[in-house]
Amino acid sequence: MAQLQRLVISASQKQASIVILKPEQQHYLYRVLRLKSGDRFIAMDGQGNSWLAELQPDHAALIEPIIFQSELPIAVTLMLALPKTGFDDVIRPLTELGVACVVPIISDRTLLNPSPNKLERWRRIAQEAAEQSERQCVPAILDPLSFSTALQTIDAKQRLICAARGASPHLLTCRLVAPSVCVAIGCEGGWTDAEIDRAIASQYQPVSLGRRILRAVTAPIAAMALLAGAQESREMT
Amino acid sequence: MAQLQRLVISASQKQASIVILKPEQQHYLYRVLRLKSGDRFIAMDGQGNSWLAELQPDHAALIEPIIFQSELPIAVTLMLALPKTGFDDVIRPLTELGVACVVPIISDRTLLNPSPNKLERWRRIAQEAAEQSERQCVPAILDPLSFSTALQTIDAKQRLICAARGASPHLLTCRLVAPSVCVAIGCEGGWTDAEIDRAIASQYQPVSLGRRILRAVTAPIAAMALLAGAQESREMT
Repeated sequence: MAQLQRLVISASQKQASIVILKPEQQHYLYRVLRLKSGDRFIAMDGQGNSWLAELQPDHAALIEPIIFQSELPIAVTLMLALPKTGFDDVIRPLTELGVACVVPIISDRTLLNPSPNKLERWRRIAQEAAEQSERQCVPAILDPLSFSTALQTIDAKQRLICAARGASPHLLTCRLVAPSVCVAIGCEGGWTDAEIDRAIASQYQPVSLGRRILRAVTAPIAAMALLAGAQESREMT
Repeated sequence: MAQLQRLVISASQKQASIVILKPEQQHYLYRVLRLKSGDRFIAMDGQGNSWLAELQPDHAALIEPIIFQSELPIAVTLMLALPKTGFDDVIRPLTELGVACVVPIISDRTLLNPSPNKLERWRRIAQEAAEQSERQCVPAILDPLSFSTALQTIDAKQRLICAARGASPHLLTCRLVAPSVCVAIGCEGGWTDAEIDRAIASQYQPVSLGRRILRAVTAPIAAMALLAGAQESREMT
């Protein structure tokens, strides 16, 4: 079962136990994956539900629900100040590592103002990576927000902000207890002092990712690996 | 001090308190970094020693040693089965995260046979990333080895192999106790069963990086983030 190909479908495509396939999905299944009528794959709605599905000439039949658990017990939101380049290459590993939501942030040091095309591309990457890494859910990639707006509107019980060059406690020393955690990570040059102060005023606790200086595209991946590892190592023992 | 530019020099360039600069280093300091005679930078020998240095017209003067600690307490060696593409983009974050040694492995499922040019490129990336991430040491990138040879010749007190889709304990549950740890990570498709058996016979303990399937270029970064985090979170509390 684990080796079957996965395809994300939208709720509107599902009618009882039938999935109406879009032309690009038919192309993907028949041409790219080279499946034939009668072959099986896994259809997932991106919200946590998956079904064993059988390909038919013009639709797919849902045979039975598949119960598995590949999501983290705590929903991780990452607020990421947009780096100059390389954000595409961040979304994919973050999805593999289990992020629930990514909030692109326009910070004081952000230079990029992403086009709608970029956002669409990041969402497509998240969907592909969710299929390939065998996740149950597709992470949400929100529209970009200013840091101030994000601090006020993004809700999370536990709030952390990564600060370089400080004496903050290591991220891995934080006991993850809440049902949701939000971690804010800066771009090239890090957060400004004013941004850190504003975050602390919004109950964000400064944490460290270690002694070395990580690039803006490495820090989120390292943070997500630590957040996932901290949760799964506790569960798997 | 932390904000000064860094430059790796070789032992043969250092003569008492003078560093003879190579033409490409002069170009880098004067043209790329736009330093002027009298400006200061940090010279590092890549083996753990650093000095505050002052640029002179045709050499650099070492003013005083700099004592800082950005290396991990345990030397981490990663044996990485070479992925089809993307290894360049793995070396840089691994260096930032503190790896001591990378062993490129030709495994049963490896398709790439890297040219000497590639190896030279990986070593240049490791040096650049060590300078930029403020490490004391430049990680060693060994010549590629077959997995069997590596299992026999690479010495490490604690030995781990990452296995996907199994019920192995999570990497983060391993107590890192030895002065050196070696972690073997597969490429696309993972290790073959025969390779896992051979590693176990060589005292490698199978571990998991979590429930989701990570790409061959994501798994080493996640593993290194966890290994560094496990060490530094213990030190920093």
